[in-house]
Amino acid sequence: MKTNLPREKYSQAGPISPVVLVTSVDENGRSNIITLGMYMPISHDPPQVVIGVSPKRYSHDLIAEQGEFVVNSPGIGMAERMHICGIKSGRDVDKFKEAGLTAAPAQKVKPPIIKECYGHIECKVVNTVTCGDHTLFVGEVVAVSIDEDCLEGGKLSLGAARPIAQKNWDYHTLSDI
Amino acid sequence: MKTNLPREKYSQAGPISPVVLVTSVDENGRSNIITLGMYMPISHDPPQVVIGVSPKRYSHDLIAEQGEFVVNSPGIGMAERMHICGIKSGRDVDKFKEAGLTAAPAQKVKPPIIKECYGHIECKVVNTVTCGDHTLFVGEVVAVSIDEDCLEGGKLSLGAARPIAQKNWDYHTLSDI
Repeated sequence: MKTNLPREKYSQAGPISPVVLVTSVDENGRSNIITLGMYMPISHDPPQVVIGVSPKRYSHDLIAEQGEFVVNSPGIGMAERMHICGIKSGRDVDKFKEAGLTAAPAQKVKPPIIKECYGHIECKVVNTVTCGDHTLFVGEVVAVSIDEDCLEGGKLSLGAARPIAQKNWDYHTLSDI
Repeated sequence: MKTNLPREKYSQAGPISPVVLVTSVDENGRSNIITLGMYMPISHDPPQVVIGVSPKRYSHDLIAEQGEFVVNSPGIGMAERMHICGIKSGRDVDKFKEAGLTAAPAQKVKPPIIKECYGHIECKVVNTVTCGDHTLFVGEVVAVSIDEDCLEGGKLSLGAARPIAQKNWDYHTLSDI
């Protein structure tokens, strides 16, 4: 039997979401981290991704003003530290310090990569679209790096990377069918 | 140690993706199904979602012309039937028949819901954005329904719904940390 849900509860009728840690910088090069469920690949050629960020978040203006961000993919071992990035604001604290994460230089953009993540997608903003109460940033991929031991025949090894799926911000790993 | 990947392989450095079955109709009310990894919630108020569809796909023009789609969320038990929706084209076959899926009327839009899925998000297109080789459709949520037994205290029960996470189109269920 099907039952109706209020429109604003649509996420309960939807699939799982990914989780990524997106890094950005301010005009002085000071970096910030935001934990996002709104990430999606969108184009193969040219390679482009989209992320969704609320204008209330500190990272929103950093990405809008500097036009660059890095999508960092965490493994399940980082769940605890990601929680800290989610509940504190970069306006008040240095999230790298608070969460015990390590910034390393990216190759083509100013925001750093987060070393503890297995994968890093460096992006330059090519389009910005307001969608209701969030902003959709379209990023063109300009460089990509990954932990060597998370690659298996050119593809991501799920066993090594242990990527995260989430629903209602409960984190899960993947199991086979 | 980090290693570089070619830009077009960025997905290997990214997180997992969801899987949804999106339904649409042509001008005569004949419906089609497309299996999509490109789905993302984007706004709470008003409730909006985004999907990414290649202009090469038959569903692309149906959604663009009729301005409506339904996001249906499958459980892992549907993996086999979803594969059929992914490899055949609605130009040639009736995917409901081919995949043994049941169409039922939606509440506010013309495309049907897929009864075998646990959740259904009915959408009207409010914006269309070209992003490289894909089209991003922004859909405002107009009605939501879900299998009664997949709700637990107003939230999706992962144990009952068994939602799917995928990487490189290998389907996985979720396990606890």
